[in-house]
Amino acid sequence: MLYQVIMTVDLPRDLASEEATRILAQEKAYSQDLQRSGKWRHIWRIAGQYANCSIFDVRDHDELHQILSGLPLFPFMEISVTPLLRHPSAIREDDR
Amino acid sequence: MLYQVIMTVDLPRDLASEEATRILAQEKAYSQDLQRSGKWRHIWRIAGQYANCSIFDVRDHDELHQILSGLPLFPFMEISVTPLLRHPSAIREDDR
Amino acid sequence: MLYQVIMTVDLPRDLASEEATRILAQEKAYSQDLQRSGKWRHIWRIAGQYANCSIFDVRDHDELHQILSGLPLFPFMEISVTPLLRHPSAIREDDR
Amino acid sequence: MLYQVIMTVDLPRDLASEEATRILAQEKAYSQDLQRSGKWRHIWRIAGQYANCSIFDVRDHDELHQILSGLPLFPFMEISVTPLLRHPSAIREDDR
Amino acid sequence: MLYQVIMTVDLPRDLASEEATRILAQEKAYSQDLQRSGKWRHIWRIAGQYANCSIFDVRDHDELHQILSGLPLFPFMEISVTPLLRHPSAIREDDR
Amino acid sequence: MLYQVIMTVDLPRDLASEEATRILAQEKAYSQDLQRSGKWRHIWRIAGQYANCSIFDVRDHDELHQILSGLPLFPFMEISVTPLLRHPSAIREDDR
Amino acid sequence: MLYQVIMTVDLPRDLASEEATRILAQEKAYSQDLQRSGKWRHIWRIAGQYANCSIFDVRDHDELHQILSGLPLFPFMEISVTPLLRHPSAIREDDR
Amino acid sequence: MLYQVIMTVDLPRDLASEEATRILAQEKAYSQDLQRSGKWRHIWRIAGQYANCSIFDVRDHDELHQILSGLPLFPFMEISVTPLLRHPSAIREDDR
Amino acid sequence: MLYQVIMTVDLPRDLASEEATRILAQEKAYSQDLQRSGKWRHIWRIAGQYANCSIFDVRDHDELHQILSGLPLFPFMEISVTPLLRHPSAIREDDR
Amino acid sequence: MLYQVIMTVDLPRDLASEEATRILAQEKAYSQDLQRSGKWRHIWRIAGQYANCSIFDVRDHDELHQILSGLPLFPFMEISVTPLLRHPSAIREDDR
Repeated sequence: MLYQVIMTVDLPRDLASEEATRILAQEKAYSQDLQRSGKWRHIWRIAGQYANCSIFDVRDHDELHQILSGLPLFPFMEISVTPLLRHPSAIREDDR
Repeated sequence: MLYQVIMTVDLPRDLASEEATRILAQEKAYSQDLQRSGKWRHIWRIAGQYANCSIFDVRDHDELHQILSGLPLFPFMEISVTPLLRHPSAIREDDR
Repeated sequence: MLYQVIMTVDLPRDLASEEATRILAQEKAYSQDLQRSGKWRHIWRIAGQYANCSIFDVRDHDELHQILSGLPLFPFMEISVTPLLRHPSAIREDDR
Repeated sequence: MLYQVIMTVDLPRDLASEEATRILAQEKAYSQDLQRSGKWRHIWRIAGQYANCSIFDVRDHDELHQILSGLPLFPFMEISVTPLLRHPSAIREDDR
Repeated sequence: MLYQVIMTVDLPRDLASEEATRILAQEKAYSQDLQRSGKWRHIWRIAGQYANCSIFDVRDHDELHQILSGLPLFPFMEISVTPLLRHPSAIREDDR
Repeated sequence: MLYQVIMTVDLPRDLASEEATRILAQEKAYSQDLQRSGKWRHIWRIAGQYANCSIFDVRDHDELHQILSGLPLFPFMEISVTPLLRHPSAIREDDR
Repeated sequence: MLYQVIMTVDLPRDLASEEATRILAQEKAYSQDLQRSGKWRHIWRIAGQYANCSIFDVRDHDELHQILSGLPLFPFMEISVTPLLRHPSAIREDDR
Repeated sequence: MLYQVIMTVDLPRDLASEEATRILAQEKAYSQDLQRSGKWRHIWRIAGQYANCSIFDVRDHDELHQILSGLPLFPFMEISVTPLLRHPSAIREDDR
Repeated sequence: MLYQVIMTVDLPRDLASEEATRILAQEKAYSQDLQRSGKWRHIWRIAGQYANCSIFDVRDHDELHQILSGLPLFPFMEISVTPLLRHPSAIREDDR
Repeated sequence: MLYQVIMTVDLPRDLASEEATRILAQEKAYSQDLQRSGKWRHIWRIAGQYANCSIFDVRDHDELHQILSGLPLFPFMEISVTPLLRHPSAIREDDR
């Protein structure tokens, strides 16, 4: 099942810089593992924002929530979730 | 260049039903031509809404505007445009 | 899978009264069939509003969208969809 | 009487981690007692959010307020309350 | 139980003037009956608006909804409902 | 003259607990004096919120502002003010 | 007593042009009478809008409402009202 | 040229009380100088708010910005600016 | 003096197509005259919208309002106005 | 390609004053280099705000994001981006 997810990051200023570096490295590894598995289908930067626009392809709401709440940046992000499905005008049966 | 585009349709009730049918058929053909050309990369239905979430891959703002303003449903849609780019954590050089 | 759905109805004033009566009867039958099947788990009136707060328990986004877009009142409603899952503090494994 | 309640948690970063652990354990026990008593009829996690969507079945506004203002997480939550009642299309007399 | 209710009226321009007169007379009688019964405890005009701010004292959500949805102006009003209770600083046990 | 006033409290976490206790006691005394004088006509708790919905009956804007800006909790509250007057459908000449 | 009032006009397109002309002439006369009496202290156009920003100096809420609800354009305006008073830094006792 | 300016003050709690006193005294002197010069034409308190509604009469945008950004409270205020001009219904040529 | 102006067009569906054509031709001529005079310094289309983002360079608010309220499309546009001035980091004294 | 960018600055109070001075000097140099290169085509101050309204003329979204995310003030700004293109009524082929 597909979900569009918008994540906007707001790192607190008093986060120690080594801790920020460590969290961002973990976030990148975490994201890339999920991209490789096919569950985090797309990730794009939104121009001018510390934010991304992503497409997830997961089994159900539970798996999506497990993934999102496990993000190392989760405590520092505002997240919006939109459930998506095949559009009747899509030329592909399985547009992901 | 990539753009996320959200289109929300609001067909007026007094649109004659044959005209609506004709416009919707034109919209579908128009969209599918652009999907085949690769410019309209993705189109998904938003669950529970008469709306779609799409990704466009076009040359520039002009081409995007020409495409969107040429949509047969353009007069009946609210449209929002968000410019996207490669995310530094993306595992692909060219995620579309 | 569970979804909270809020539906707010806005019947146009120029809807002929027999047509309104017919649509509302269809809506009721449509809703009650889905309630009996267990897919429309809960439906409550929101106090003071021509609106309901509902819980759906369906297979996936596609089934939810098929149900919602098939509502006889669909053209006259504003709909919001929120994906829900089991809460870690829930005392039941399967709270529906 | 039924109420839909949305609770969104925002734990301050400077909350000592042991205190957070203690508060969350108290919150869980408090919630589960009320679930067992039937007053906190449903609790669901909202996908991607540190938030829940709940249904309360209590005697009156006073009891609802007493319960909500007594939540160990009350100082760290944004809460919205919506009064609900039986929907005329409900198939059950007593949908809770 | 107490509720604050804000009602904002928007009479459509094409409402025949006799029908408007009739509806407004019915609304006034309906409101005054409820005021006399003590259920519509207070009604005030909001300065500069075609709107009122009211306090209802009714048995439960059902009775409130029955009253509000029965208002002759109900199809022409936007309504917001806020559940109220005794404030701990109130000097009266029963402030209505 | 009548005013509806909504006050929403947001006590900062780093307010020393004795200071909070002292301010809240002052607030209660301040409010009850004004209630006894008839100027603070009604005060109700809003269910589920650290907020109240009040009706003031004062001489003019100046007196209202003097009262509100003198509230011990004034620095910690968001306040909204709505001027009210007699409603033409009110059964009482002097509904307060 | 002073009030800031913002009025935004939205004339319906199907208002017959003679009727619009008549209403606008009445509105102008009505406004100028009140300006001469000192009750409508200031009226300014907001640049680029079919709207005005005004200051009223009237006895009480009732008089303000009587004036505003009597505006020939009242059915075609959105109105917001803000109660004003002397500012402690004002150099005049009686700034109007 | 005329501008309506709304200024809403939010003094941070950790501002030392002597510094706050000094800034507020400077603000008052600064404002009164500009009122005497005729540039700060009106200043009113908004009832119930730590905010003012003002009318400025200055040469151009530059002068307005110089004045506003020079306010001792500028770092602690939210400011909105609305350009005003003579209203065609004004009875005075030069309403300030 | 400089102003940023955003204009969003909403042509009513029942505008006769010849009238629309005539208005749009007038609008274009009107705009181009002002562009040639230097008063309408820039006009850009906003991608995906029936809207423009413009920069005006006029004598004062009056001239701006006269221009905007004289637009043939004025009755069909939503307009927002933002006063601009030289930025202290600008490399040009006179950036228009 | 053209973009309108609105940047609103919010410097935290606890930023050491020398650090603020250094960042602002860097920001100015950074901006002026880009202005000289023609990529930061226009920059204007918004009257009464610690904010600017700018026009960028860059190769694509990537270049825009690289520029904006490299701003020394980037962590302290809220940024909005609007893609612009030639307006059909523009008298210039290449209005920048």
